[in-house]
Amino acid sequence: MTQPPYAVADTDLSLLTDLYQLTMLQAYWAEGMQERATFSLYYRRLPTTRRFMLACGQQHAAELFTRLGFNDAQLASLADTGQFRDDFLAWLGQWRFTGDIWTLPEGTPVFENEPFMEVDAPLAEAQLLESLIMNLVQLETVIASKAVRVVLAAQGRPVMDFGLRRMHGIDAAVRGVRAYRTAGLAGTSNVLGGLRHGMPLSGTMAHSYILAHDDEAAAFAAFARHYPDTTLLVDTHDTLEGVRKVVELMRAEPSLRVGAVRLDSGDLGQLAREARALLDAAGHPEVKIVASSGLDEWRIAALVEARAPIDVFGVGTEMGVSSDAPVIDLSYKLVEYAGTPRLKHSPGKTNLPCRKQLYRRHDAEGRYIGDTIALRDEPGIEGEALLRPMVRGGQLVQEEMALAVGARERVIDSLSRLPDALKRLEAGHGDYPVDLSPALERLRSTTRNAI
Amino acid sequence: MTQPPYAVADTDLSLLTDLYQLTMLQAYWAEGMQERATFSLYYRRLPTTRRFMLACGQQHAAELFTRLGFNDAQLASLADTGQFRDDFLAWLGQWRFTGDIWTLPEGTPVFENEPFMEVDAPLAEAQLLESLIMNLVQLETVIASKAVRVVLAAQGRPVMDFGLRRMHGIDAAVRGVRAYRTAGLAGTSNVLGGLRHGMPLSGTMAHSYILAHDDEAAAFAAFARHYPDTTLLVDTHDTLEGVRKVVELMRAEPSLRVGAVRLDSGDLGQLAREARALLDAAGHPEVKIVASSGLDEWRIAALVEARAPIDVFGVGTEMGVSSDAPVIDLSYKLVEYAGTPRLKHSPGKTNLPCRKQLYRRHDAEGRYIGDTIALRDEPGIEGEALLRPMVRGGQLVQEEMALAVGARERVIDSLSRLPDALKRLEAGHGDYPVDLSPALERLRSTTRNAI
Repeated sequence: MTQPPYAVADTDLSLLTDLYQLTMLQAYWAEGMQERATFSLYYRRLPTTRRFMLACGQQHAAELFTRLGFNDAQLASLADTGQFRDDFLAWLGQWRFTGDIWTLPEGTPVFENEPFMEVDAPLAEAQLLESLIMNLVQLETVIASKAVRVVLAAQGRPVMDFGLRRMHGIDAAVRGVRAYRTAGLAGTSNVLGGLRHGMPLSGTMAHSYILAHDDEAAAFAAFARHYPDTTLLVDTHDTLEGVRKVVELMRAEPSLRVGAVRLDSGDLGQLAREARALLDAAGHPEVKIVASSGLDEWRIAALVEARAPIDVFGVGTEMGVSSDAPVIDLSYKLVEYAGTPRLKHSPGKTNLPCRKQLYRRHDAEGRYIGDTIALRDEPGIEGEALLRPMVRGGQLVQEEMALAVGARERVIDSLSRLPDALKRLEAGHGDYPVDLSPALERLRSTTRNAI
Repeated sequence: MTQPPYAVADTDLSLLTDLYQLTMLQAYWAEGMQERATFSLYYRRLPTTRRFMLACGQQHAAELFTRLGFNDAQLASLADTGQFRDDFLAWLGQWRFTGDIWTLPEGTPVFENEPFMEVDAPLAEAQLLESLIMNLVQLETVIASKAVRVVLAAQGRPVMDFGLRRMHGIDAAVRGVRAYRTAGLAGTSNVLGGLRHGMPLSGTMAHSYILAHDDEAAAFAAFARHYPDTTLLVDTHDTLEGVRKVVELMRAEPSLRVGAVRLDSGDLGQLAREARALLDAAGHPEVKIVASSGLDEWRIAALVEARAPIDVFGVGTEMGVSSDAPVIDLSYKLVEYAGTPRLKHSPGKTNLPCRKQLYRRHDAEGRYIGDTIALRDEPGIEGEALLRPMVRGGQLVQEEMALAVGARERVIDSLSRLPDALKRLEAGHGDYPVDLSPALERLRSTTRNAI
């Protein structure tokens, strides 16, 4: 008996959309509305526990869009819903993305209302991307924006992703590793995520390995013989007793090299100090201490502040779901159609019409001092133009895509240029100035009055 | 140029594991540790904002495990890590799950420390499932457990899933629909999720459709002509003005039938009352009111309490990430190996050794009055035995798998039997009694003393 697939493959993704996208597409098709449109992707409000978001996933998504389409099986299942005409479905079978996609390079810090992607394409092409673009870009941006705080808190100590088991499903766990790499984590326990996204694999052992052996010391010995320089998990029964057994093992078998011990419960700061003392007293300053268990940026900052002798942090749950800010209120809004600015009136919300560009200004030392959101072709705006054309006429621009590969280096550079106030963990937004250009401000008020 | 895949297909899933599972497997293989083991899946602590969890996804995952394996490309990429011996990888190429999996039927309310899956298999088979089982089962359980609260709050009014764009990636959005179906939602906007998991599709229109037309009334007319009985989104410019335009459209073109208007911003209760009054005054009591925008169980409960005339709720963000409880602390623990009970000592935590069964007692009216966690084969325990063998010798037990299909009916039945205290939204756990059987209590204390 053949089972239906469990996971979602690339060929399924054109149907990963809200029904209304397809019913609107059919209406546009029937009405002959095929003029060029621009949609802008941005978020309205920074979560209270973030000072900036780290844009991530947008080039990855753009790459996917250049090969999106509908196969016969998909068209047949749409026909079965009874909501679509055969001639529309025939047209949908030819649907390809032929437009342009402008994006901020991945790893760029981004603030409220700043466009981080703009899509220029015939209306039906740009409209259809809406649900997918928001789902895909939100995930990587939310995860990277949380992870960069954890990395900042660790102040140079390596941080490892242990979050596979708590992240929301298959895709979150695998693409999450891509976001972690961008944000500066040092490794991951997630085999598929690490292999696919070029992140070093890292692993220790589980309590079950200890328990399957009749004796903890025997389990340590067996594992260390298999894996030189491995990490031994010492808290199955009693953490410091576990450390003593590791010390005894190294004494009894001097040829065995142990890389680290891992603490996974209890008062990590206190246990790390006592474990360090035991290891040093036994002449093993080279054995490192890995700590995990309920860590997030706050707990890590407290351990670093207290000078706990922890060399590596393993972080899972809280980072993996970004529990304090699991969503951002991304919008993907029609801002221009058929050459005319479009603007939804929303009391208390900023909606900005027309194709835009984002400029970032630096001071003499290269530090960011403020941004300007401007019209795409508006002359005379100071600063570096950040939105770049990643897709032109439905084709990837290879030299621009290459920027995504260097995202990690971009984050390191960006963090060095970011005002210190934005790198603090505490709530509060750090007052980074984001202005509208004169022409955009003018257009915004005339468009509002016209509606 | 061929691009790497974007999403994760079924054939990738055996590598969706933590590195240590594979290094432990190699160690077990080298040590000849192939005795039968039992691992138990349970959660330790109910989130403060839940009174029960709705077990979901465990039969779905079990089905996947019966066809999991490693292909040559996967083995080659593992070889490239340099951590695995060729003879081990050859053995891994033959890895299949040949054991038994006991699960609670999907849609069963489950409480702290209750086993909701137990895996009995040779050690290397049961161990390898750990990371995947936790990732897969957590997602559906977390989403279903949040969604059932939203359904309870709506008191019979249909709830639609609008969450695709905010959920954590591709897999969360698609399998989330499966959890929503189990929890009792009435439909989803998510095309792929709905088609794959048998949930009715539901859709309205987006603001961009209104804005792409030069005039809101013209947009309503065009859409209603395409789609009889559709839902028109009335808040693009001014909600009540939008409703008036719908009324005027129905007056001017009496042949057009409008199914509903959708409110998506502002004071939903007040706007629903005013919209209802406008529609009724125009002789259109049949036009329904759909409300969306920032809804969760609390806001819906308040609207229902205030008798807001809302017929259908569309719910996205908060339900889609279960923002108040995005994770549960699932554990998958070795509880027996080679016929011997295994127990990790954790101060303040309940760990229960050996193969188990879960019994639920009913009163004379069929209401649940308490549970007992017992040894699998312990005689004389009162109540219904809930863990059932879904997989036997690596094969699905078809009559048991059929139970998963009826999960929705099981939830309706379970909710009718659940004490009212457990169905309230407020924090607090409702004091549902979960006891340990005499033999389990005895074994637990002797196992603890033996270590």
